[in-house]
Amino acid sequence: MLGAQGRAVHQCDRGWAPVFLDREQSISLMSVGFLLEKPDEAVVWRGPKKNALIKQFVSDVAWGELDYLVVDTPPGTSDEHMATIEALRPYQPLGALVVTTPQAVSVGDVRRELTFCRKTGLRVMGIVENMSGFTCPHCTECTSVFSRGGGEELAQLAGVPFLGSVPLDPALLRTLEEGHDFIQEFPGSPAFAALTSIAQKILDATPACLP
Amino acid sequence: MLGAQGRAVHQCDRGWAPVFLDREQSISLMSVGFLLEKPDEAVVWRGPKKNALIKQFVSDVAWGELDYLVVDTPPGTSDEHMATIEALRPYQPLGALVVTTPQAVSVGDVRRELTFCRKTGLRVMGIVENMSGFTCPHCTECTSVFSRGGGEELAQLAGVPFLGSVPLDPALLRTLEEGHDFIQEFPGSPAFAALTSIAQKILDATPACLP
Repeated sequence: MLGAQGRAVHQCDRGWAPVFLDREQSISLMSVGFLLEKPDEAVVWRGPKKNALIKQFVSDVAWGELDYLVVDTPPGTSDEHMATIEALRPYQPLGALVVTTPQAVSVGDVRRELTFCRKTGLRVMGIVENMSGFTCPHCTECTSVFSRGGGEELAQLAGVPFLGSVPLDPALLRTLEEGHDFIQEFPGSPAFAALTSIAQKILDATPACLP
Repeated sequence: MLGAQGRAVHQCDRGWAPVFLDREQSISLMSVGFLLEKPDEAVVWRGPKKNALIKQFVSDVAWGELDYLVVDTPPGTSDEHMATIEALRPYQPLGALVVTTPQAVSVGDVRRELTFCRKTGLRVMGIVENMSGFTCPHCTECTSVFSRGGGEELAQLAGVPFLGSVPLDPALLRTLEEGHDFIQEFPGSPAFAALTSIAQKILDATPACLP
């Protein structure tokens, strides 16, 4: 998605040097994918080995000074999530940004993730609804492919902020497929407007972190 | 999805009695969801505890005589998958039915799952592409929301059967939301035809199991 496939992680004197996405080194990246010899290799690891690597990704990467550290976790409430929370606790993480799709099955999973956050003392910064509605490029009619409004209802029910809905947008999906820069290529698309508004809400809610 | 929420699992003399979905008891079901006191409770379990429950779901449930046992796993190649393969090995499972969506990010994950199957000696029965294309209910034009053809290409590359593509179908999604019977309500829908054809291919490939 970020056009970083095949890039390698190097050892520097302060630890692993992350992969930089741009010349200004404003976005750095770390992934287990960079450590595998072949991209098709399966990471057949049980919990303890995964937990150890997650800790290393926090402690042994030469992140330098960061404005934000974003950890993209798999869905669920298991080893990866517990290890991430434990590794980040000393740094007082801002909280969890919880993403759901609108349908009941997904909202049900996310309800359990909210319970997990409460149990582990992690603040929920807000809920985002992804894949909400699809505007047909042929007739411009919008269809709620996966039903609609599940994310907003859940946020109300759980008493956490609802940050917005991101529509299914073939332009976004295509640029992600091809590792292009969606922001530069489709500034007028509906997904762009939605994502910008969500990002702004997150910035507004975290003034202490801004430079 | 199966309209079984809130149902309870009972202890019988041969173990846990699974939940039956129909009066004829032709479909029985077991899920950790039935064992939780509250549906929103998070299953915050590390690998070993999950592994133990997966083994129990195979050995301690009074399944009776089954034609097929279908295990719906989360994505990935981790504890759950290893525990499932280990627990089922004595029963010589037919193999893995691998589901992907068409986009490259998903196909990449599934490539790693195929490697996992090869490493663990589990046959791959075939690949199914889900969410491939959306036919607008307003203008009947079909759009490849998530690109297209990734599943079929992957099957060719990996030398395993491609079983078919299931389109995004709001009727299917709605009946799953409401726990209705899609087969009875929408026999003419495109997803129904695709699912029937895939099921038939699986039946054809497993003649030894048919009564």
